[in-house]
Amino acid sequence: MGKIKTPHGLIETPIFMPIATRGAVKHLTPDELNSFGAQIILGNTYHLFSRPGLEIIKKAGGLHKFMNWSKPILTDSGGYQVFSLAHRRKITEQGVKFRSEVDGREISLTPEESIKIQMVLGSDIIMSFDECLAYPAKKEAAQTSLELTSRWAKRGQQEFKKLIKNRRDKPLLFGIVQGSTFEDLRQQSAEQLVALNFDGYSVGGLTVGEPIEMTYKMIQATEKHLPVDKPRYLMGAGKPEQLIEAVKLGVDMFDCVIPTRNARHGLLYIFKNNNLKGKFYEQIHITNEKFKKDFRPIDHKCHCYTCSNFAAAYLRHLFVVGESLGQRLATIHNLYFYLDLMRRIRHSIKAGKF
Amino acid sequence: MGKIKTPHGLIETPIFMPIATRGAVKHLTPDELNSFGAQIILGNTYHLFSRPGLEIIKKAGGLHKFMNWSKPILTDSGGYQVFSLAHRRKITEQGVKFRSEVDGREISLTPEESIKIQMVLGSDIIMSFDECLAYPAKKEAAQTSLELTSRWAKRGQQEFKKLIKNRRDKPLLFGIVQGSTFEDLRQQSAEQLVALNFDGYSVGGLTVGEPIEMTYKMIQATEKHLPVDKPRYLMGAGKPEQLIEAVKLGVDMFDCVIPTRNARHGLLYIFKNNNLKGKFYEQIHITNEKFKKDFRPIDHKCHCYTCSNFAAAYLRHLFVVGESLGQRLATIHNLYFYLDLMRRIRHSIKAGKF
Repeated sequence: MGKIKTPHGLIETPIFMPIATRGAVKHLTPDELNSFGAQIILGNTYHLFSRPGLEIIKKAGGLHKFMNWSKPILTDSGGYQVFSLAHRRKITEQGVKFRSEVDGREISLTPEESIKIQMVLGSDIIMSFDECLAYPAKKEAAQTSLELTSRWAKRGQQEFKKLIKNRRDKPLLFGIVQGSTFEDLRQQSAEQLVALNFDGYSVGGLTVGEPIEMTYKMIQATEKHLPVDKPRYLMGAGKPEQLIEAVKLGVDMFDCVIPTRNARHGLLYIFKNNNLKGKFYEQIHITNEKFKKDFRPIDHKCHCYTCSNFAAAYLRHLFVVGESLGQRLATIHNLYFYLDLMRRIRHSIKAGKF
Repeated sequence: MGKIKTPHGLIETPIFMPIATRGAVKHLTPDELNSFGAQIILGNTYHLFSRPGLEIIKKAGGLHKFMNWSKPILTDSGGYQVFSLAHRRKITEQGVKFRSEVDGREISLTPEESIKIQMVLGSDIIMSFDECLAYPAKKEAAQTSLELTSRWAKRGQQEFKKLIKNRRDKPLLFGIVQGSTFEDLRQQSAEQLVALNFDGYSVGGLTVGEPIEMTYKMIQATEKHLPVDKPRYLMGAGKPEQLIEAVKLGVDMFDCVIPTRNARHGLLYIFKNNNLKGKFYEQIHITNEKFKKDFRPIDHKCHCYTCSNFAAAYLRHLFVVGESLGQRLATIHNLYFYLDLMRRIRHSIKAGKF
């Protein structure tokens, strides 16, 4: 259990961060995020850089003002999307050149540029620009890539130090550990970044298709080389039981599309017991025939807005006829579940029972 | 200015009713509808009868409970949708037989059945089952049709009287005036229905493609034969200036997809002056380039949730990138505008200035 101080307030960890890819958590207002206790959300640098573009967010006074969210925002570096979405990508020592997937124009992104963009967005927790390899990767490629990531992290940090000079409210800068699925490379990457003394460390390059046991192994191989007094963020994870395992391995922060994307497909989470052990939750398909005449809430023990106000049969009906209110109510429920899971983990840690 | 007493409370007229076609006003919760003062909403009998079906709504305890809305609901008779959506329709004296547009099964709907369905839905204001002709209609067809509608209205009323016997909270039953675009037929239809003494009267068969001057003429031709102490409802209208004209002609109640459908297409309403005269409002396309860097609300004088919290540039961004939150915020704004328009009309009537 820890606390992270940011320009927009304290965050209690371990924490899950809902994803506001394009400056909005799909279907929800900031008021709704506040209503169920979201402490921090994630914005995607690449998507926001593409649309609406930096000029507009700068003129709005930053992403917080643009989207009317007053709590902390973490931004990714854009690296992951450049590697997964952009066309005709070319990587050099300097950075990455690519064609935008929105309008085809050529964009170049460097470690310095990524930091500058995140500063304009007004991010509270900034990520270093990294190269994220696909799984599986050859060891030689992983070695070369992690070293490039370390050099980029250093360049980004220098830019960051210039930009925060004379600023009262300083955002945090995280380094991103790479090294694919090789324990010794994870150690190398972690040590190189720790030597630069970042405000926190992300475990990158995982949950990209490798078996979950490998993910856990790599988290361990990474975490033991990170300082205990700095936050650790596992990027892009994961399922509820995986978050618990990762917290046990020392992870403090998570983000994932799972709860929101699943909600939009009518897949909802329900707690089965309170001890967070074994099969402690269930996933239901709301369109399932068995909810047709079920006039109880999805989970009668759940205190979310959806369960407090609507029956499973109504939610099912909304999905069946394609009313978007259904996706909205499901998103509220699933994010509430994920945030509640983290709250339970924090309480359990506080009580010394985790 | 008047008041209508229903089992779920009083309605102040003139009033606009947001449409909850399938048991939800698109994108919005009942709490949001309450927040901007919606007094009554409209449910579509045909759509709700198709999905989720009567059995489910009955088990839920009615439409109010199913969708968690505690204020009045008006339901249409299903007639309009049977005539515009259903396949292989066959009209007889008895009623209508058709194939469902959802699953192709044969359904028969009679005046009695329509009333029964609306009673199961738990509607506060029930419509008689009518035949709605397309525009233009031949006079002979219109004559035959209005007479059938009157006979159906009478049969429906008999069924209604049976069903409300011994009930404490009695819903209201409206007759629907037809007669296409013929003044004498409008008079005939009105007189036949008034003889049956309904709780209110709908002006049906208008805003189906005829020129607006013809609409006004037919409203006049209808209203003058209706009792002054009963509410009059113009079905399916209309644009803001048309509502004002219709109120002048004696109409008390409106419903229309315009504000919500336009909202989903990024077309928003803004008041230009307070006297409701001349070009008193403007329609804007939120995706217009000119809003790209406009960090003011869509309408800085508007007190809706959207204008109180978000800039035009942000709303534009949400539409451009296809975030459904944009449609939701636009729906809130447009419904607020329509309800505010009716509120202004009521105040103006109260002040003797209308």
